[in-house]
Amino acid sequence: MFKDPKLAPELAVSQWFNTDKPLTLEGLRGRVVYLHAFQLLCPGCVAHAIPQVQKIEKIFRRSDLQIIGLHTVFEHHAAMTPVTLEAFIHEYRLQSPIGVDLADGKSPLPVTMRRYEMQGTPSSFLIGRDGTIIHRGFGIEDDMVVGARIASALAMPIPEVEKPAAPTGDASCADGVCPV
Amino acid sequence: MFKDPKLAPELAVSQWFNTDKPLTLEGLRGRVVYLHAFQLLCPGCVAHAIPQVQKIEKIFRRSDLQIIGLHTVFEHHAAMTPVTLEAFIHEYRLQSPIGVDLADGKSPLPVTMRRYEMQGTPSSFLIGRDGTIIHRGFGIEDDMVVGARIASALAMPIPEVEKPAAPTGDASCADGVCPV
Amino acid sequence: MFKDPKLAPELAVSQWFNTDKPLTLEGLRGRVVYLHAFQLLCPGCVAHAIPQVQKIEKIFRRSDLQIIGLHTVFEHHAAMTPVTLEAFIHEYRLQSPIGVDLADGKSPLPVTMRRYEMQGTPSSFLIGRDGTIIHRGFGIEDDMVVGARIASALAMPIPEVEKPAAPTGDASCADGVCPV
Amino acid sequence: MFKDPKLAPELAVSQWFNTDKPLTLEGLRGRVVYLHAFQLLCPGCVAHAIPQVQKIEKIFRRSDLQIIGLHTVFEHHAAMTPVTLEAFIHEYRLQSPIGVDLADGKSPLPVTMRRYEMQGTPSSFLIGRDGTIIHRGFGIEDDMVVGARIASALAMPIPEVEKPAAPTGDASCADGVCPV
Repeated sequence: MFKDPKLAPELAVSQWFNTDKPLTLEGLRGRVVYLHAFQLLCPGCVAHAIPQVQKIEKIFRRSDLQIIGLHTVFEHHAAMTPVTLEAFIHEYRLQSPIGVDLADGKSPLPVTMRRYEMQGTPSSFLIGRDGTIIHRGFGIEDDMVVGARIASALAMPIPEVEKPAAPTGDASCADGVCPV
Repeated sequence: MFKDPKLAPELAVSQWFNTDKPLTLEGLRGRVVYLHAFQLLCPGCVAHAIPQVQKIEKIFRRSDLQIIGLHTVFEHHAAMTPVTLEAFIHEYRLQSPIGVDLADGKSPLPVTMRRYEMQGTPSSFLIGRDGTIIHRGFGIEDDMVVGARIASALAMPIPEVEKPAAPTGDASCADGVCPV
Repeated sequence: MFKDPKLAPELAVSQWFNTDKPLTLEGLRGRVVYLHAFQLLCPGCVAHAIPQVQKIEKIFRRSDLQIIGLHTVFEHHAAMTPVTLEAFIHEYRLQSPIGVDLADGKSPLPVTMRRYEMQGTPSSFLIGRDGTIIHRGFGIEDDMVVGARIASALAMPIPEVEKPAAPTGDASCADGVCPV
Repeated sequence: MFKDPKLAPELAVSQWFNTDKPLTLEGLRGRVVYLHAFQLLCPGCVAHAIPQVQKIEKIFRRSDLQIIGLHTVFEHHAAMTPVTLEAFIHEYRLQSPIGVDLADGKSPLPVTMRRYEMQGTPSSFLIGRDGTIIHRGFGIEDDMVVGARIASALAMPIPEVEKPAAPTGDASCADGVCPV
């Protein structure tokens, strides 16, 4: 799934809200990503993490930061269905894309949560322009620190994104670039 | 349902949590009751009203105050079922009895909510020892004011509770009193 | 100074602000008194106690509660003079009477502070209608608890104030009562 | 006083605390400076600005950010003397250098305050590595925004500091450089 062990693990999402098409970290390479994992019945998420994300949305709206929410249900599964999540998103007026972490039945923990080895919710991951994890957070994080970390990540130069080698004898214009 | 128009309307509850037997305001006459109405997806309820109720539970635990929660779902009905409420009560560690306001299908608003003519959630009602409403609250209430109101209500003398007249020619011991 | 050991010790004040005439606890017998001791350079006083007192002033303004501030300077004496206190009272818009605790030179601690055996600032004392101390507080106190305590104290019946025995052979009408 | 109109005006300070030698913005060129102006009896300064500065001190302690406080007394001059300021600094455990803004008697406003055309207190100025003002703040500023601004400023490359031209026919080693 993720060849380079230094890269942030790819997302595994069963359903998206607030976006027309699925997002992948690979497709976002070159941008800073703020990934926040939550459960709608998690008191710390609702009291602290969600309001903090809303603040991030507002403050960095003119930057190229991509905020992604991940609903990582690992308990009370029957109580936190996508139907309830949709109403939650509506009531809390969340604007950024939110994915439902894929439940594969192999564990009470969904797939992305296991890939990131999250300890619980709320968790957050600041992913740099090069796709690596700059910071892993668990629990309440201080606003000033969060602001400083994101600004530092945004200030880092955009890396050379590796372009896939043009397939021999194929002059297609995949990925928007037309190879000779 | 409620003969005396000055009395707080009786509760209509389809399911109770945190109590073995259903509660009625009539059965609680003589005690002060703090009735708080909420929805588990209501941001103001979760951020302000629920923590305030938890504080009331703690501060007045040695008094004879009876706290009652009422889950008054009037929107997103499929998202806030008793299954989700039960997990919510567990996660937020709510201790006092909580009833699900009865949905009778005649309105998106449940029955008790209509009886009290609530404007929305969070709402709260301080009911005195005589069964009348001392204060109606809607939205965020100040902690100091809430503490003062409850203490004042508790300080009021316990009224003479009207005892039902003993039925003629019937020597039963209903209500724990044995008439001649 | 205070004959009855159960009574709250009398105040010893060298200068008053926000009042035309000096206050004494004896003269306030029959009313509930909220006495708060502070220093203008005490961080906990400024951040927590003073705003709480301002809330008490607002919430209980229609009751007969008497709020009294006491500037109990026990360190940095040269930095917290009455001149600085006066500007502090102006800037923080304090409304209730405030007295400067009397420095008698026998101790770095002023007189009233010693009489009450205060541990430091902020300290607060809730004094009942009968003149006894209902509660001693030191440090940050919870708003809801403070509101409840004051309301309970206000709800207590006004005690019979001991009237001075009429001097024999003197039909004067001292204290507003005319003895036979 | 300040030749380049784009540069932040130089400080005019009559007395320093928390530093052995006076600071000048010119001497700090190449570093980011967070300059905060306050008065010890200003409620907004004590409640919001000072705690925010303490947070900045903690979070950016490993960066080369220079924090400077400026006591800009423009009212109640007799109440906010250096003696009181010294006790204030002690009680609030302020760590960064703090200067007393120079009172020249020409105005109730001290000199630096006039140079910066401050509107009042609390005011803050984020000064970039090139000596220009990046942001002017007045009143309460959001923690996340402040953190982001400072981190962005710190991420800016250190500019070439203009070296003064060697005075003709003068081989002195002023400013630590020895011209030919």
